[in-house]
Amino acid sequence: MPGEDEVDRRVTLATVAREAGVSLPTVSKVLNGRSDVSPATRAKIERLLDSHGYCRRTPGAPQSPLIEIVFHELESVWAMELIRGVENVAKRTNATVALTESGTRQAPGPEWIAGVLRRRPLGVLLVFSTVPEDVKRQLRSRAIPFVIVDPAGDPDPDVPSVGSANWAGGLAATRHLTDQGHRRVAIITGPPDLMCSLARLDGYRSALTMAGLDVDPELVRFGDFHVQGGYDHALELLRRPDRPTAVFAGSDLQALGVLEAARVLGLSVPGQLSVVGYDDVSLAQWSSPPLTTVQQPLQRMAEEAARMLLRPPDPRKAAQRIELATHLVIRQSTAPPADG
Amino acid sequence: MPGEDEVDRRVTLATVAREAGVSLPTVSKVLNGRSDVSPATRAKIERLLDSHGYCRRTPGAPQSPLIEIVFHELESVWAMELIRGVENVAKRTNATVALTESGTRQAPGPEWIAGVLRRRPLGVLLVFSTVPEDVKRQLRSRAIPFVIVDPAGDPDPDVPSVGSANWAGGLAATRHLTDQGHRRVAIITGPPDLMCSLARLDGYRSALTMAGLDVDPELVRFGDFHVQGGYDHALELLRRPDRPTAVFAGSDLQALGVLEAARVLGLSVPGQLSVVGYDDVSLAQWSSPPLTTVQQPLQRMAEEAARMLLRPPDPRKAAQRIELATHLVIRQSTAPPADG
Repeated sequence: MPGEDEVDRRVTLATVAREAGVSLPTVSKVLNGRSDVSPATRAKIERLLDSHGYCRRTPGAPQSPLIEIVFHELESVWAMELIRGVENVAKRTNATVALTESGTRQAPGPEWIAGVLRRRPLGVLLVFSTVPEDVKRQLRSRAIPFVIVDPAGDPDPDVPSVGSANWAGGLAATRHLTDQGHRRVAIITGPPDLMCSLARLDGYRSALTMAGLDVDPELVRFGDFHVQGGYDHALELLRRPDRPTAVFAGSDLQALGVLEAARVLGLSVPGQLSVVGYDDVSLAQWSSPPLTTVQQPLQRMAEEAARMLLRPPDPRKAAQRIELATHLVIRQSTAPPADG
Repeated sequence: MPGEDEVDRRVTLATVAREAGVSLPTVSKVLNGRSDVSPATRAKIERLLDSHGYCRRTPGAPQSPLIEIVFHELESVWAMELIRGVENVAKRTNATVALTESGTRQAPGPEWIAGVLRRRPLGVLLVFSTVPEDVKRQLRSRAIPFVIVDPAGDPDPDVPSVGSANWAGGLAATRHLTDQGHRRVAIITGPPDLMCSLARLDGYRSALTMAGLDVDPELVRFGDFHVQGGYDHALELLRRPDRPTAVFAGSDLQALGVLEAARVLGLSVPGQLSVVGYDDVSLAQWSSPPLTTVQQPLQRMAEEAARMLLRPPDPRKAAQRIELATHLVIRQSTAPPADG
C-alpha cells in the first residue's frame, strides 16, 4: 500500500498534468530529465511543479544518495580543498560525493543539467558565480537544492551562497606589511572582472590610507591568479629603481611567482623583499620560505555549503548568503624592510 | 513486457535462490547491499551469483552511470591528478565520477562495500595496494568491475592494476646526476614498507654502480613522502662535513623539504646542491627553483584504469597489469657540481 507521501505525490503530479494539459507520463519524462518533450511543454510543467511544491523525496529515491559538486576546472588548487569539505559532510550523512567539471568560470555548461536531473542528488554545490535562469528553474522544479560556493565573491542575489571576507583579507595582508614598516607595498590582485580581486584591492587601499601612505598606481597590478602572472608582474615591479620592499600577491600561486622572480633577480625573501599570499592552500606552507598568507577557509566554506543543502529550506526566508572570516597566517616570507 | 535480458536475469536469480535454498527476496537483499541477511547466506548467494555469471546491466540500472574512485586520503597531492584522469574518461562516456575516502593505505574500509553495492557503479578504481578477499568476492558477484591504481607499486596479483615504472624512474633520476658529474649523491626514498620506495632505491643503486661509484649507506635515507621528512633528512645530510652535492628526493614533497633545508643552511640550488624530485605533480613546476623531477603519469594511469573498467572483461585472460613509463623532466634544480 502506498504511504501518505506517495499518495500526495501522485495527486500533485496528476494536478500538474491536468493543469499543463498533458498526460502523466509526460510529467514523468520531465522529472526524469528525458529529452523527448518540447521546450515549451517542459518549461510549463517545471513552473507548475515548482508552484505546487513538488517534493523530490519519493519512495524511489536512491538509497545511497549523492551530493554533487560542479567545477569549472579541476585544475584549480582550490578544487581539492573544496572537495575535502564536501566529503567531510557526505561521510557523516552516508552520502557519496559526485564530481563534475563543466562550463565556464561563470556558469555550468548546458549538458550538465540533463545529467543532474537523472542523478537526483540530495543537493548541488556549484563553484560558480552565477547560475543561468533556466538551470535554476529546472533544479527548483525538481526540488534539488543548490548552493553557490563562491570564492570569487560575486554571488547571484537570489541563490544561497557561501563566500569569505575578501575586503577584510586584503586589509589584514596589507596592514601586516605596513605595521612592519614597509612604505612601498605593491599589490598583484586577481583578474579585474572578479569581485574578489576588487574587494582585496580596496582592502589594500584602505590599509595604506590608514597607515598614512598614498596609493602609487604604478604599484597596483591585476594578475590572473596563476604563477606566471605573479612572476611577470613581479619581475617588472622589482626591476624598477624605486622597487617595492613588499608585495601582496592576491593568491598563493601568484606569490610563488613572486618568490621565483626574487630568486632570479638575486633578492632574498624576506631579507630584501616581503611577500604575502592569499588562500592558504596547502602548498603555501611548503614553499621556500613558507608563505605568510591570508587564509580563505575553503574547506569550511564547502562544509557550510553542504550543510545548507541538507537543511530543510524555509520558503519564507530570502536566499541566504554566508561569509566566513579570513585571517592572516604569519610564516617566514615577511619581515621588516632592510632600511626600516 | 520484460525484454530478453530481463527474462534471463530472472531465471538466473530464481536458479540462485533455489540452489542456495533461500527465497528470491533474500537474493534481492544481497544484491541491494541490505544488512539483514546472515553472513553465511550472503557468502553462499554471492558465490552462486558469481558462478552463474549474473550480470549487473539490468533494465533498472541508472541512466546516468557512476565511475567510482576510492582513496585512503584525499590529502595526497596525487589525489587531484588521479581524479582528473577519471573525469577525462567519465566525461567522454557520459558518466559521473563518485568519490569516496575510506580505509587505510592498504585497503578500503568495511563501511564502503555496502554503499558501493547500492550505488552499482559501472566500475570502481581503488587507489590501494590490496583488496580484501571478501570485498573482491562481493564486487565480483555483482559483476562490478574494479581496477587498482597503484602508485605504490605492490599490486595484488589477481586484480587488474595500473602502475608505473619505479625502478626505471629511480635509475633515470640518479643517472641524470651522475652524468652531470656528481659523485656524492644522496637518496631520500619513500617509506620502507612500500615497494615503490624499494624499486626507486634499487634504480639509484644501479645508476651509481653503472657510473663506477660505491653506494655510501650513510647517504641512503627512508622518508615518509611528506615535506617534513625531506626537510629533516636533508638538514642532517647537508650538515655533514662530507655533504652530498646532490639529493634524489623520491617525491616532489620531499624535494620541497630539501629545498627549504638548503635555504635555511644558506646553500644555493642548483649552485651548491642539485635536487631531483619524483612524481611531477603540478607544484613541482612552481617551486623556486622549478624542480627537476621524474614524471609519474598519474593522470594517464587513472585514465588507463578507467578504460580498463569500461572494457568488457575477457574471462579467459588473467588479471591485467599495466605499467606506464616514467620519464625525467629537467628543470632548474640540477646542475653540475661546483667542484666538478
